[in-house]
Amino acid sequence: MLSDIKVVAFDADDTLWVNEPFFRSAEAKFFQILEAYIDKRDFTEELYANEVKNLGLFGYGAKGFMLSMIETALELTEYSIKGEDIQKIINMGKEILAYPINIYDGVEEVLKALENNYRVICITKGDLLDQESKVARSGLGDYFERVHVVNEKNPETYKRIIASYEIEPSEFLMVGNSLKSDILPVVELGAHAVHIPCDVQWVHETVAKDQYCDKSFINATSIREVLGHLSKK
Amino acid sequence: MLSDIKVVAFDADDTLWVNEPFFRSAEAKFFQILEAYIDKRDFTEELYANEVKNLGLFGYGAKGFMLSMIETALELTEYSIKGEDIQKIINMGKEILAYPINIYDGVEEVLKALENNYRVICITKGDLLDQESKVARSGLGDYFERVHVVNEKNPETYKRIIASYEIEPSEFLMVGNSLKSDILPVVELGAHAVHIPCDVQWVHETVAKDQYCDKSFINATSIREVLGHLSKK
Repeated sequence: MLSDIKVVAFDADDTLWVNEPFFRSAEAKFFQILEAYIDKRDFTEELYANEVKNLGLFGYGAKGFMLSMIETALELTEYSIKGEDIQKIINMGKEILAYPINIYDGVEEVLKALENNYRVICITKGDLLDQESKVARSGLGDYFERVHVVNEKNPETYKRIIASYEIEPSEFLMVGNSLKSDILPVVELGAHAVHIPCDVQWVHETVAKDQYCDKSFINATSIREVLGHLSKK
Repeated sequence: MLSDIKVVAFDADDTLWVNEPFFRSAEAKFFQILEAYIDKRDFTEELYANEVKNLGLFGYGAKGFMLSMIETALELTEYSIKGEDIQKIINMGKEILAYPINIYDGVEEVLKALENNYRVICITKGDLLDQESKVARSGLGDYFERVHVVNEKNPETYKRIIASYEIEPSEFLMVGNSLKSDILPVVELGAHAVHIPCDVQWVHETVAKDQYCDKSFINATSIREVLGHLSKK
C-alpha cells in the first residue's frame, strides 16, 4: 500500500487513450505506398533509423513522424517518389493529429476516485499543440491540476516536476505504459510507479529485461488496479 | 515609471535574438526552387494560405513551416516537384532548427540588471523542443525563473501565467516585438507591455493600426529602454 503519495501523475498516450496503433496503421499504409516503387519487404528499420536520427531536431510526435516518413520515402525510392504519394504521407500525418480519442476502460473512474484526495497531473511527451489538443478532445482535462508537455521523460524532467510541487520523490506516483519513459526514470529518483503494459509499443520505448527486472515498481494489467494500491480513495 | 512590477516576461524570437530573417531566407530559397517549375513571381500568398490552414493542426514553428512549404510546392507544381527538391526543403527546415543564436545588443545587460529585483521569465510560442533548444543555445536560460512554451499568446494564456505567479495583472510586464502576440493581449488584461518593433515580421503577426493606436503600452527602439521604465534595477 502506498500511503505517502500526494501527487499522482498519469502518462497520456497509450495510458489514458489509444495512440500507438494510429502510428502503426499509418506506418502500414506508408509501407504500401513504398511497395509501388520497391519490392515488398519490412521497411521498419529504415524508417526507425530516420526517426531516431531526427529526434534531436524534431522531438517526438506526429510532425516529426511525417517528416521522417517523407525522408525515408525519398531515400528508399532514390528520390523518384511521386508528389501525390508525398501528399498521401502528409495526409496520413494530419489524420494522426486529429485522431478520435478512445479513452481506455476504467480511466475516468480512476481519475474521479482520485481527484478529491490527491493532486492529479498529466505528464506527456510529444508536440505541444498535439498533446494539449488530445487532452482537450478527451474531455479529461478538468481532472488534471496541470498537464506537463515535456521533450524527454528522463530523471531530470521528473526531478524538476516533483520539485515544482514541493514534495519528496516518495510522495510521487507515476502511472504509465512505457518502462523507459514512465517507470525507470521515476524509480531511479526513489519515487513510485505503476506500469500498465500496452499491446502495441514503439520500438524506441522498449527496454531490455535486465534493465528493469531488479527495479521496484508495481505491474498492473488495468488502470483500475491503481486504486487498490492507494490508501486514500 | 512602472513601480508595481513583480514579474518581467520576455518574448524570445525576435525580441532576445534574430529569428524571422532565418524563415524569410528559407522562404527566398524555397521560391527559387519553385522557379524551376513555374514562372518567377511572388509565392508568398500561397505559402501563407497553407501555413494558416495548417496552424490549427501543426501550431507555430519550423516543423509546420517545412510541411506547409512541401504542400505548397506540391500544389503549385501540380505534384511534379522532384524528390531532390523536397529533400532541399526539409534540409532548409532543419537548418532553421539549428540556426545560430545571435543575441540582440543590450539583452544580457538588461537581464542582468533585472535578475535580482524582479522575477524574470520567458514566454514563447512554437515547437516545444525547438524553443527550449534555442533558450539553451542562447546561454540565457539561467536568467529565467521559467520558460513558458505556449501554443498561442492570447489573453487566456497570459491570464493563466499571471495567475500562476499569484500576482495582479498590474504587477506584470511583458516585453516583445509582436503587437499581436506580446502586447495587445497583455494590455487587454490590464497588465503592462513594452513593444520593441522588429525590422522583419511575419505577416501573421501584423495588426491594423486602429487595433492598437488607442491602447496604452510603451513603444521602445531598444531593449535597453526597458530599464528606464522600471523603478528597481
